Amino acid sequence: MFTGLSAFPLTPIADERVDEDAFVRVVARLRDAHVDSIGALGSTGSYMYLSRPERARVAELAVEAAGDVPVIIGIGAFRTRDVIANAEDAQEAGAAGLLLAPVSYQKLTAEDVFRLYADVTQSLSVPLVIYDNPGTTHFTFSEQLYARIADLPHVASVKIPGVPAESDAATAHIQDLHRQLPDGFTIGVSGDASAATGLAAGCDAWYSVIGGILPQPALDITRAAQTGDTERARSLSDQLTPLWELFATHGSLRVVAVIAHLLGLTAPRNLPAPILGLDQAVHDTVRAALHRIGVDV
Amino acid sequence: MFTGLSAFPLTPIADERVDEDAFVRVVARLRDAHVDSIGALGSTGSYMYLSRPERARVAELAVEAAGDVPVIIGIGAFRTRDVIANAEDAQEAGAAGLLLAPVSYQKLTAEDVFRLYADVTQSLSVPLVIYDNPGTTHFTFSEQLYARIADLPHVASVKIPGVPAESDAATAHIQDLHRQLPDGFTIGVSGDASAATGLAAGCDAWYSVIGGILPQPALDITRAAQTGDTERARSLSDQLTPLWELFATHGSLRVVAVIAHLLGLTAPRNLPAPILGLDQAVHDTVRAALHRIGVDV
Repeated sequence: MFTGLSAFPLTPIADERVDEDAFVRVVARLRDAHVDSIGALGSTGSYMYLSRPERARVAELAVEAAGDVPVIIGIGAFRTRDVIANAEDAQEAGAAGLLLAPVSYQKLTAEDVFRLYADVTQSLSVPLVIYDNPGTTHFTFSEQLYARIADLPHVASVKIPGVPAESDAATAHIQDLHRQLPDGFTIGVSGDASAATGLAAGCDAWYSVIGGILPQPALDITRAAQTGDTERARSLSDQLTPLWELFATHGSLRVVAVIAHLLGLTAPRNLPAPILGLDQAVHDTVRAALHRIGVDV
Repeated sequence: MFTGLSAFPLTPIADERVDEDAFVRVVARLRDAHVDSIGALGSTGSYMYLSRPERARVAELAVEAAGDVPVIIGIGAFRTRDVIANAEDAQEAGAAGLLLAPVSYQKLTAEDVFRLYADVTQSLSVPLVIYDNPGTTHFTFSEQLYARIADLPHVASVKIPGVPAESDAATAHIQDLHRQLPDGFTIGVSGDASAATGLAAGCDAWYSVIGGILPQPALDITRAAQTGDTERARSLSDQLTPLWELFATHGSLRVVAVIAHLLGLTAPRNLPAPILGLDQAVHDTVRAALHRIGVDV
C-alpha cells in the first residue's frame, strides 16, 4: 500500500467547523483519479487543528469517500495517550494505515520519540508510516532512529522530508537508507518539488500535497517514474515549477487552499483560524500558475 | 499585577492524569512564599499537553490554592476557537490575567498572529500578557508587532524571551522597547539565567521557571533588583549557575520536574508521555547542584 502516489487532501474548514461536503468532494476526486492511496489528516489535512471527535469524523468520511482506495490516517498529537486514542478511532473508521509524526511543544529527545512509537505500535492492527516533517514537528530524525523504529511491529514505511537536489546524491542517499531499513520497508518522498528526483532515486512512494488537489499531474509524474522514464517524470515536474515556486513562497497548505477554492470545491475561506487565507493578489497569481500548467479555473 | 516575580509552576502528571494533590502542593508553596503572581499553565505547566477540561480544572485549582496571590493562566492553542474557549474557562475559574503564546504547527505570519490577538481580546474581562517564546512556538515577533498588539484592548504586558548578556546592551534594548509600547505596559524577562540582567536593565517583571519550584532564591534576586541593588541581584543569580547550566543542557522543564520530585512534592515520574524524565545520573547531578546552592534535599 505504501508505494506509488499517496495523495494528501485538505480538510476544508468553514465557519470554524469541518466542511464535510467539501471534504468528501476533495476525496472523491482522488478516488476517481485512482491514486494509490489517500493520506487524510496529514499536515495538509490540518490534523493538529482538529479535536478528537472531528478527527474521528474526518477519518470516517475519508474511508467512505475513498471507495477502494486505501486510506492512511494521521494520528499525531503532543501526548502519547492522545496518539493512541487517535489510532483507535482511525482503525475503527477503517483506515488501511496510519501516519505518525513526533509533533513537539517541548523539544523531544531521540529516546522520547522511540518510546512514543514503541508505545503506540504495541496495540495496532494496521501498518504505520513514520512521518518525518521537521518543518512542523521541529524534531530531526537520525537514520539510526529510523532503523530502530522500523524494527518495531507494524512500522512499514517512512515519509522523508526530501532528497538532495542532485540526482547522484539523491540515489546514494536512498540506497543508503534502504540498506539500513528492513526488507520490504518503503521510503516515500515528500516536498513535492523534489518528488521526481526522489522517485528516480529509488523512493517507493510519493507522499504528495499537490496530489491531494491535482491528482492527475501527480499521477503522470509517478507513473513515468515507475516505468523507469525518469526523464519524462522530471520534465513533467518541471512543468509544475510555477506551483513549486508558490509553495516555496507561501507554504503548500495556503496555496492548495486557494486551488481548492478556485476549483469550486470549497468556500473562499477554508483554513482554520488563525491561519489566514492568501490575499486576492496571490489568488490571481495562483490562477495564472494553474492556467500555465493547463488547469482551467 | 504584571510586575515583580511571576512564578510558573509545573503541572505534575501521574499515570497520564493531572496529579491534583501534587499541583496544589506546588502552588501552595508559591502562595506561602508571597510571590507577586503565579503563572499557571505556562510552558512549565505543560498547557499544550492538556485537554480543555484538564486545563479548566488546573486553572480552578491554581486560583483556589493561590489565596491572595493573583493567578495568570496560559490560554494558548493552535486554533483561535480553542484559545477563546480556554480564555472563558480561565476567567470563570477566577484568573486575574491571561497569557497567550502564538503556538504554531503551520508557520504563522505576523498578520495571522495579530488577528489571533485581536479576535481573542475582543471579549476579555481581564488583562492579557503577550507570551513570546520562540523556542516552543516557532514564531518570531518583531518589535513592531509587539506594538500593534499592545494597542489592542486588555493587552498589558509582554513576556520576552531574554535580554542581551551585556548590561548596557540589555538596558538599551529594554528602553527601546518601552519607548515603542504604551505607558504602563510592562515588560517581563524570561530565560531565568538572564533575569538579573533583565531586571537591572529595566524589566518590570520576571516570568520565572525556577521561581515556580524554588520561589525564595528567585524572590531574593527580584527584591534586590527592585531596591536598585543590581550587584546583589547579579551575585545571587550567579550563585544559581549550577541550575542555569542544567537548564541549558536538559531544558528547564525536565530539570524542574526532577527538583519537584527531590523536594518530595511529586511522584518520581511527573511529565506527560512522550516526555521522559531525566535518568538517575542526572537526578544525582541535580541533587548535587541543589546542595551547592543550599537547598537540602
